Amino acid sequence: MKSNGVEVVAFDADNTLWHNEPLFTDTKERFTELLRPYHSTEWIEERLYETETENLKHYGYGIKSFTLSMIETAIELTEGRIGGAEIGRLIAEAKQMLEAPVKLLDGAEDTIRTLSEEYRLALITKGDLFDQESKLARSRLGDLFAAVEIVTDKTSKAYRDITRRLEVTPERFVMVGDSLRSDIIPVAKIGGRAIHVPYSVTWRHEAVSEDGLGEYEFARVETIAQVPSAVKNFAETQGKES
Amino acid sequence: MKSNGVEVVAFDADNTLWHNEPLFTDTKERFTELLRPYHSTEWIEERLYETETENLKHYGYGIKSFTLSMIETAIELTEGRIGGAEIGRLIAEAKQMLEAPVKLLDGAEDTIRTLSEEYRLALITKGDLFDQESKLARSRLGDLFAAVEIVTDKTSKAYRDITRRLEVTPERFVMVGDSLRSDIIPVAKIGGRAIHVPYSVTWRHEAVSEDGLGEYEFARVETIAQVPSAVKNFAETQGKES
Repeated sequence: MKSNGVEVVAFDADNTLWHNEPLFTDTKERFTELLRPYHSTEWIEERLYETETENLKHYGYGIKSFTLSMIETAIELTEGRIGGAEIGRLIAEAKQMLEAPVKLLDGAEDTIRTLSEEYRLALITKGDLFDQESKLARSRLGDLFAAVEIVTDKTSKAYRDITRRLEVTPERFVMVGDSLRSDIIPVAKIGGRAIHVPYSVTWRHEAVSEDGLGEYEFARVETIAQVPSAVKNFAETQGKES
Repeated sequence: MKSNGVEVVAFDADNTLWHNEPLFTDTKERFTELLRPYHSTEWIEERLYETETENLKHYGYGIKSFTLSMIETAIELTEGRIGGAEIGRLIAEAKQMLEAPVKLLDGAEDTIRTLSEEYRLALITKGDLFDQESKLARSRLGDLFAAVEIVTDKTSKAYRDITRRLEVTPERFVMVGDSLRSDIIPVAKIGGRAIHVPYSVTWRHEAVSEDGLGEYEFARVETIAQVPSAVKNFAETQGKES
């Protein structure tokens, strides 16, 4: 039975296993406060987002990239009038973000433990290698994953490469995550299974319109605690089909 | 014969396959020029190195980390008097470093092509995932490597994990690189083979005293063009022993 069904269950980490977006939201709030003497909140947020997006091709994802984008935006928006001391505060913010405690989502640990008894588990995250490894170590969940894959971007090609490395066919691979753009659509595109667990906040860059999602097959649950039964459901369906 | 000898030949990338250190050396020179109105060159270099070393635990290796350390050092050494415009120049430097053409060392491409006909090749680098992948893509050597491993630090544990993933025993694994600290000693410690190809400049952080090196077994050649014959030499020796 099991051999006909799911073999590998893979998890996204940021905003799927542990809270991440609030860290950025809080820092952005303090960033706009710093620049409020110069511009409106909306304009500051807009410019920061543009700089971040533009810099993805230079820096990739992660806190260090975000920090360099904050510094660049601050210089631009003040036409260079921002002082060294204020920029020093942005660097201090970055270090605090990098050291912030890893707060697991309710039910994440139980879900991982339960599923690890029956399936090979993988962790698939994008972003900064150093930061993601450090968070995984602090989460104390590392030993439960048979494989940890940190990639620069979660494209269909990246998922295809990973399933090959894990020696699993896409039909026996399930991806669990909060981002339609990074965790669900690229996996559905290669014929993998996916379970969407929305997070309370989505970074604008990851947001995807729900229109046109109908063409992709995936499951959706409200909390990570519901993932084991959703996986079981996949497995049983597959078992019956084959 | 071959089955008794070397199976995997792994290469470091920065300063082994392509020039990297000169990029940092040039940027550091411009950095000290920027701060020369405030301090002596020696003091600036010393403080930058201290900040970089201290920040490794926050940031890991790479250009983004180095840039954040330059900015922090500039703020410290000017007691916050450095202006936004000057810091903007440091960010522009970072982007230039990230986009700099990848210049292969003489003989690197031939060596890789020759060895790829007989052995499985791996690329093992540390540092920033995004930057290293981008350099590998620009080097156009990517297709010749059976595996690419980007790690946060090149410890004996990291090499042991890699040999496991590659399903090769350490005795059949050869590592080629310019850094005694990162490429040679940790590999020799787990019973792997190693070939040291010194680069003209070594970052202080990677430098290791030659005293006490006697306890580690490894080969040394002058240029990367001599690596294929050094590998062949290993293979033959092993073939005779077993």
